Amino acid sequence: MELTTPTGASILVNLADDFIHGFAKMKVKRIGYGAGQSDMDFPNVLKLYLGEASGRRFNHDEITLLETNIDTATGETMGYLFEQLFEEGALDVVLVPCIMKKNRPGHILKVMCNQADVEQLTALIMEETGTLGVRVMPHAHRLTLSRRIVEKKVVVGDREFKVRFKVAFDSAGVIAFERAEFEDLRRISKKTGLSLRKVREELKS
Amino acid sequence: MELTTPTGASILVNLADDFIHGFAKMKVKRIGYGAGQSDMDFPNVLKLYLGEASGRRFNHDEITLLETNIDTATGETMGYLFEQLFEEGALDVVLVPCIMKKNRPGHILKVMCNQADVEQLTALIMEETGTLGVRVMPHAHRLTLSRRIVEKKVVVGDREFKVRFKVAFDSAGVIAFERAEFEDLRRISKKTGLSLRKVREELKS
Amino acid sequence: MELTTPTGASILVNLADDFIHGFAKMKVKRIGYGAGQSDMDFPNVLKLYLGEASGRRFNHDEITLLETNIDTATGETMGYLFEQLFEEGALDVVLVPCIMKKNRPGHILKVMCNQADVEQLTALIMEETGTLGVRVMPHAHRLTLSRRIVEKKVVVGDREFKVRFKVAFDSAGVIAFERAEFEDLRRISKKTGLSLRKVREELKS
Repeated sequence: MELTTPTGASILVNLADDFIHGFAKMKVKRIGYGAGQSDMDFPNVLKLYLGEASGRRFNHDEITLLETNIDTATGETMGYLFEQLFEEGALDVVLVPCIMKKNRPGHILKVMCNQADVEQLTALIMEETGTLGVRVMPHAHRLTLSRRIVEKKVVVGDREFKVRFKVAFDSAGVIAFERAEFEDLRRISKKTGLSLRKVREELKS
Repeated sequence: MELTTPTGASILVNLADDFIHGFAKMKVKRIGYGAGQSDMDFPNVLKLYLGEASGRRFNHDEITLLETNIDTATGETMGYLFEQLFEEGALDVVLVPCIMKKNRPGHILKVMCNQADVEQLTALIMEETGTLGVRVMPHAHRLTLSRRIVEKKVVVGDREFKVRFKVAFDSAGVIAFERAEFEDLRRISKKTGLSLRKVREELKS
Repeated sequence: MELTTPTGASILVNLADDFIHGFAKMKVKRIGYGAGQSDMDFPNVLKLYLGEASGRRFNHDEITLLETNIDTATGETMGYLFEQLFEEGALDVVLVPCIMKKNRPGHILKVMCNQADVEQLTALIMEETGTLGVRVMPHAHRLTLSRRIVEKKVVVGDREFKVRFKVAFDSAGVIAFERAEFEDLRRISKKTGLSLRKVREELKS
């Protein structure tokens, strides 16, 4: 049995931006019912919820994930490849130790990148490591927070420093958290002789 | 050259539930041939196999896989996040140690969940770890066995215990294996003072 | 506003084999402009680039990736499963150590295979390890180099050996690299008593 008319289907398709499984995370504001004319085995009623989305509003983008299993390169080569991948446009790179066939210790190389860089990064991986195949995982959707950098003056020991804070906020402008930039804490640690741990503690107090 | 007529294509599309690459795993029962009228460079023959599927009949469902690389949280935080993710509806959570940029030891957090929970779990991960992006891997198809719990009486040492067994069976009702519930073995180990290993051995004998 | 006519769209769809985000990796040979008749808020100009693809020309194929998290099998069982998976047609298998719920050390088993083998390999994994679900990652696209085996005579110590080299070349026939087959180096190491490291060095000189 069809549970919608062509008109109903066409309204849905044209008005809805997205469909989800399950119930949306929202604060329900209003509820409406409409009764149909056909007699069915179950109540012939359409229920509509109008609500305000609760929770974070994320940014959405798409990235590509490259993966390959490597047992044909030394640690030296892998470390150098890491650097080169970032230079050639990789967004992030991680190495995961793993066990491969014939008792071989190996690594899974995972590279996050834009689609336009797939072929160039793949060529680089192959030429440096001698691997013959790279998997291109279909465009992973990514939920992100926006970030802006805010500079603050802080006192560590008896000296004043400028520290950049990464402020993460969602697409509704709500701040999720802020985090001092690592490179600035590192600089303060070097200049004051205090441990990184100590510098972090001073910032919080 | 087109190798099917519109009628042939429409029969296929309407009668077939699924298409696979390669040859289906089945016991072939009958084979039929039909010859076409056109003269081609190769035998113009259509071959049909009728068979019974062999092997396990799995249940199929879809889950979503969240992934993010984390180097901004302590072990304490990660352990606590683990608990929280399960409380908020995660189906499974694993942490994979990895090497990140700038020689940083990190972890890939992998969360299996239903699509309806993606945004809430993502918000939790971001707020606890300070990561700015979470990858949402496109709906992984999942093959599963069904399970039912069967309670049996077993003798361990000189005492009788009730032990639940997880019985795994496929969609044709064929039992694949059964496995004593860990929590029950744990309870017997505590009560008898025997090691978990010893308890397992007693159960098998 | 629509930025193409039906004719324009249909030319694109029929002539293009593929669409990419971003700009193609190529050496631009010629550039052409065409001006449209409508007056718009921006220059109504179509720009075409004709170029030669630069960089490697990869082969493309599709593989399927199976994944499951396992904490219900011993190391012995996992090692044996490894062997069996290759015998049943797996293209590659890796084991990634991970941390699972309740402080359990576990492994993520990743199996690369052809789609036709998914159900059989899944059944094998379930029966050996007692896991109840296996994720089937949607057909990962794979970029590969072709390979051919070339046999060369090499002198190691004062003896001559035949060594097979795997020569990797792209779809334009350009050689990317060559690599001595591990099993041949292993054989020479055994026969000469030299370390594998030493054998490799002799080959390079």
